[in-house]
Amino acid sequence: MAVYTEVTDEGLAAFLCGYGLGTTVAFRGIAEGVENSNYQLRTTTGDYILTLYEKRVDPAELPWFLGLMEHLATRGITCPQPVRGRDGEALRSLAGRPACITTFLPGVWPRRVRPEHCGPLGEALAALHRAGADYAPCRPNALGPQSWAPLLARSAGRVDEIQAGLGAELSAALDRIVGAWPGGLPRGHIHADLFPDNVFFLDGRLSGLIDFYFAATDVLAYDLAVCLNAWCFEPDYAFNVTRARAMLAAYDRVRPLAAAERAALPVLCQGAALRFLLTRLYDWLHASPGALVTPKDPVDCLRRLRFHLTAQDEHAYGL
Amino acid sequence: MAVYTEVTDEGLAAFLCGYGLGTTVAFRGIAEGVENSNYQLRTTTGDYILTLYEKRVDPAELPWFLGLMEHLATRGITCPQPVRGRDGEALRSLAGRPACITTFLPGVWPRRVRPEHCGPLGEALAALHRAGADYAPCRPNALGPQSWAPLLARSAGRVDEIQAGLGAELSAALDRIVGAWPGGLPRGHIHADLFPDNVFFLDGRLSGLIDFYFAATDVLAYDLAVCLNAWCFEPDYAFNVTRARAMLAAYDRVRPLAAAERAALPVLCQGAALRFLLTRLYDWLHASPGALVTPKDPVDCLRRLRFHLTAQDEHAYGL
Repeated sequence: MAVYTEVTDEGLAAFLCGYGLGTTVAFRGIAEGVENSNYQLRTTTGDYILTLYEKRVDPAELPWFLGLMEHLATRGITCPQPVRGRDGEALRSLAGRPACITTFLPGVWPRRVRPEHCGPLGEALAALHRAGADYAPCRPNALGPQSWAPLLARSAGRVDEIQAGLGAELSAALDRIVGAWPGGLPRGHIHADLFPDNVFFLDGRLSGLIDFYFAATDVLAYDLAVCLNAWCFEPDYAFNVTRARAMLAAYDRVRPLAAAERAALPVLCQGAALRFLLTRLYDWLHASPGALVTPKDPVDCLRRLRFHLTAQDEHAYGL
Repeated sequence: MAVYTEVTDEGLAAFLCGYGLGTTVAFRGIAEGVENSNYQLRTTTGDYILTLYEKRVDPAELPWFLGLMEHLATRGITCPQPVRGRDGEALRSLAGRPACITTFLPGVWPRRVRPEHCGPLGEALAALHRAGADYAPCRPNALGPQSWAPLLARSAGRVDEIQAGLGAELSAALDRIVGAWPGGLPRGHIHADLFPDNVFFLDGRLSGLIDFYFAATDVLAYDLAVCLNAWCFEPDYAFNVTRARAMLAAYDRVRPLAAAERAALPVLCQGAALRFLLTRLYDWLHASPGALVTPKDPVDCLRRLRFHLTAQDEHAYGL
């Protein structure tokens, strides 16, 4: 679940005094999400999300994330909007954590992905990339390729506990991927974590994108590679090329992909699989017995990585 | 978190066709709760809770729980009400689980208990006991005193992993408590799990009671003993007699306690502490590494049990 920090009723009441949102009507923790504590908050004026930022988020970076969400909304992207207090500040403090109230987005994330989801997703991702183009501040991607070798090193001593030979396999894959990492591709602000539970649909249409706290300035097509990993595998890890084709075609209609971006898809997808594998591996090996969140199985990403390592070129993704 | 069973969007849409509640607007897992999967569901007609009953609940007993909730509501107790489908049935099936939609109750459960909560709680508990008096069907308490020795036996081989000597301590306590268990006290339907996260407050008033899935027919004053355990200890396990006095006095005003019930409070409190200790002990020792819910620390209940074992009589509880 995603409630690490409990908020007392008096604490919440005092916090709400800083806003013009009325008083609490209902307040429940949200099960989805693994990084921050999220509550669904109803006040006498409406519905909101209260987020308490937990230890993986650097408070100094929060203005960048909130600013990006505000910027994207002014360019037509539906995403949660920070609600400002009476003093004009959106970023505040509650229960010893940085905290923010954002608007509530209607919609349901798809528990089972169908090809009909993937076109709207590709279109929304391209629209996000275009809308971010004139957001001036940059945030280097802390989980980009330069982070992967140090991340693997932090798990290196125990990685073979997961599977014999895994350490050597990952080391070889890492060298190959980082060695082949493309330079010169178009860059911009990427979501970097657009898994199905961060995308809402309503009445068959994509109704909003949430959870921008991994967003960064990086290779735009890498964001597509994250989505190909997150949306296009069957439960048995077969790659669903119908979904991929729908996603890529819809993306391309809104923001045409350059030949170099298409050609780079295999290595970008390998990198995306490796990035999630490495953070899950670390979380898996370092989970405390009393952890509130079940670590996600890193082997899931390994299966995806192995597929991408067999991809000869962009045709593997339906292009 | 309390989402063990995922519901697909198509599954939810098909499920809602059986009701006259409109279509889905939002659907999020609720973090609170450990036994069943709970979702906050918004449709075009309003807000609801969708509960999927997990393995600890016997489907055959669900009509008893739902019937009790309906009965209590007709007697003025605010609790979730089962919503019936077009066919008149409240209990249905979704994602392979028994499932029910209930009404949404406004309110917030107190994250930090204050004496001002305990009077309204005592009053509501007494009102619940009175309101249940004419609900004819009975449900024996599967977690009553007769269950404690078998429960301890299921953990016996490993109980000393928690603390050296704990097995012997619990065995002695169990013999003493079961041996002194009072007969002849007034019986009725009890909630049996009225911890703070099952009690909502709004604007300083108690606004509703939830989660009746441990309810049973048992000694009424035992329900008070559960609440004394759940509401009246400080974080350092000091017993807060101010809270206890407020709870007991308010209860007594609505349903006067007999002398025998007052005199039995120490052993009833010992039993309530032991009951929660034993289920937590079992869950703690049998938690799977991939468990979604962090088991609650049984030592927490041990500290409470030790206090109650020192209680000479009802004066220990402020009476």
